[in-house]
Amino acid sequence: LSLVAHSFTPLSVCVLLSCLFFLVTLRLIPSVTDVFVAAKMCGRDLSKTTSNPIPEPMGVVVAAAYLVCMFLFLPFPFYYSWYLQSASTLLHEKFAEFICALLCICCMIFLGFADDVFNLRWRVKLFLPTVASLPLLMVYFVTFHSTTIIVPLPLRPLLGLSVDLGVLYYVYMGCLAVFCTNAINILAGVNGLESGQSLVIGVSILINSWYNLGTSQHDCHLFSLYFIIPFVAVCAALTYYNWYPASVFVGDTFCYFAGMTFAVVGILGHFSKTMLLFFIPQVANFLFSCPQLFKFVPCPRHRMPKFDPVKNQLGMSYAAFRPDELSFTSRALVWFFRAFGLAHVRKTSEAGVVEMSNLTIINFVLKVCGPMHERTLTIVLLSIQGACSLFAFWVRYTLVKYFYVD
Amino acid sequence: LSLVAHSFTPLSVCVLLSCLFFLVTLRLIPSVTDVFVAAKMCGRDLSKTTSNPIPEPMGVVVAAAYLVCMFLFLPFPFYYSWYLQSASTLLHEKFAEFICALLCICCMIFLGFADDVFNLRWRVKLFLPTVASLPLLMVYFVTFHSTTIIVPLPLRPLLGLSVDLGVLYYVYMGCLAVFCTNAINILAGVNGLESGQSLVIGVSILINSWYNLGTSQHDCHLFSLYFIIPFVAVCAALTYYNWYPASVFVGDTFCYFAGMTFAVVGILGHFSKTMLLFFIPQVANFLFSCPQLFKFVPCPRHRMPKFDPVKNQLGMSYAAFRPDELSFTSRALVWFFRAFGLAHVRKTSEAGVVEMSNLTIINFVLKVCGPMHERTLTIVLLSIQGACSLFAFWVRYTLVKYFYVD
Ligand SMILES: [Mg+2]
Ligand SMILES: [Mg+2]
Repeated sequence: LSLVAHSFTPLSVCVLLSCLFFLVTLRLIPSVTDVFVAAKMCGRDLSKTTSNPIPEPMGVVVAAAYLVCMFLFLPFPFYYSWYLQSASTLLHEKFAEFICALLCICCMIFLGFADDVFNLRWRVKLFLPTVASLPLLMVYFVTFHSTTIIVPLPLRPLLGLSVDLGVLYYVYMGCLAVFCTNAINILAGVNGLESGQSLVIGVSILINSWYNLGTSQHDCHLFSLYFIIPFVAVCAALTYYNWYPASVFVGDTFCYFAGMTFAVVGILGHFSKTMLLFFIPQVANFLFSCPQLFKFVPCPRHRMPKFDPVKNQLGMSYAAFRPDELSFTSRALVWFFRAFGLAHVRKTSEAGVVEMSNLTIINFVLKVCGPMHERTLTIVLLSIQGACSLFAFWVRYTLVKYFYVD
Repeated sequence: LSLVAHSFTPLSVCVLLSCLFFLVTLRLIPSVTDVFVAAKMCGRDLSKTTSNPIPEPMGVVVAAAYLVCMFLFLPFPFYYSWYLQSASTLLHEKFAEFICALLCICCMIFLGFADDVFNLRWRVKLFLPTVASLPLLMVYFVTFHSTTIIVPLPLRPLLGLSVDLGVLYYVYMGCLAVFCTNAINILAGVNGLESGQSLVIGVSILINSWYNLGTSQHDCHLFSLYFIIPFVAVCAALTYYNWYPASVFVGDTFCYFAGMTFAVVGILGHFSKTMLLFFIPQVANFLFSCPQLFKFVPCPRHRMPKFDPVKNQLGMSYAAFRPDELSFTSRALVWFFRAFGLAHVRKTSEAGVVEMSNLTIINFVLKVCGPMHERTLTIVLLSIQGACSLFAFWVRYTLVKYFYVD
């Protein structure tokens, strides 16, 4: 057994299991399509000329596969350590963190699925990730984790070397979970985008953690890899089916699942700032969406791009409203977006009614590049996501020297 | 803080939180009815003359409330211990067990909900609790828990004082989870029965654990109470709405949730044999149902009692079949059940077709006592459940002396 323990590290077991579950998920998704259709869990693709029912939320199946994979992997990082060395308090703490992370992810999947089934309202949607991140906050609290952060160099004259954020740190962690889950959910509506962006972020975290193995942060990044490698595997299988033309939809379940996995890995891996750098397009999309999300500017039910069946292309989608019915702030915002070329505003045939392109980065890309085929749009958006990850690496490993001394 | 820690024990916090969540669940269930109906998550009560849609599976809401309650309670048993004393390996292990138990329960709720939404097939139903109990088995394995059992006195000449069951013990634990979840699910079909039986079993475990506080098994039973008290609270709120005439249905979600909670508490509290004693009616129902479950005797889709709208009473339900199409074993079984008065067999107007009352203890009760009102039937069945719990206490605290020396 000792020989086996030495030749198979937990990390290699993790990679093997992930490959296995990539194949399992690849087989599983088409086999459950009938079950989804029979249960009327399906949606229609508004950007296609056909109207076949598309099974949704397939994120449930992918998430379930992920959980089983993690459950099977669970003993490996710890059993050998305990078998080879003796049990230490630190290892027990790591073990509790590991199960706790799984608990958060599992709870988020459950609540996300409930959201897909019941179509919950916006404020409930914000509440769900908070609930699912509770175990994490509690374990963080119980195990006396530090809530002290190192202050960046430019701010040190003001704040000193480090600051104990105290309860604010818990607020930060809760907000991170809420942000990660919802940020992926609102950058959506094009075949392959939800799963594709999660895949790009997942691979970015994977590369970052792999690069950090062997450094002083070895343990944290190993922990991160244990969670991210299986995630990338099942997410890749999902992307295969969600890619244009999508034969499955991922559902809110998947967005919550992906977001919570990232949040948990970022927090327990102690690289939440780096992780947020991989979310640049999502942050941009969220900030850009704020006027609509918070109802300063009228917001239709769906903001996905508009399908042109003649040219088989996607173009900008618009929200129609009467400017004279808006408040001063709202009109100022519309003027601002129009003046800086961030949104397209046009008159309609009806007198006094104007239309403004919806405030998403998908529409912004379509405004800059013009209408394009759905697959092209996904590729452009994922390329932007990839480019932002490269930028994030540059910030993290080059620019950071001006803010923190290594 | 130290003063607070001494005046509020974790157990009293648990009781307070449970009371709070009893009220929360009581408010929550009626408020989500509209959401369930809008999402078409409802069923029809076949034992009523009206055909209002009844929201189902309400177990989802109850289970979610339970999870939130447990998440909020999570820090209490550990924070004070760590604050007052220092962190010990034993305490860390208890902590990991606690989160692991929550993980199993949460995973079971998710899979149970998926079952309710997708109406999964029988063999998948058996597979789900196995998956959800994986974390428990893994943690048991990793923390080197003993798989040795004490041999009862009569068998000691053969087997010695104790036997190491090894891998068989894991099979036992997995089977316990599968049994507990499905046993509650098949003793169903009458208003208030699923939630009522869970409430009786829950209260029995509560009393047993409370009675054992202060003994050598104190820690295990304290652990059990932390899980069972909130369960009893939310289950009581559910029973209130599920009672005749039911305004909500519990769904498979609740049966899985309740069963997994019992299994986890029994295993980690090290009183799984005692816990099984509280399942006597379920065991009897399962054994009695076996010929139908394993298709030796024809089994209709639903085996719930038949409603007589004229008398407003429930009577036995029957499965119709042609005896000459059955195998020899099947005919022998039918003869056996008829000869021993366990089932009612009657001829139908169609030549060569006979009907046998379905093999459930509900039908058996109706056979012995005659048709009765639905509420009366529930009360009779729950009284049997209660009587069995009293019998279980007698076995556990009196009869056990002949098998194990105290
Ligand atoms: Mg969505
Ligand atoms: Mg059921």
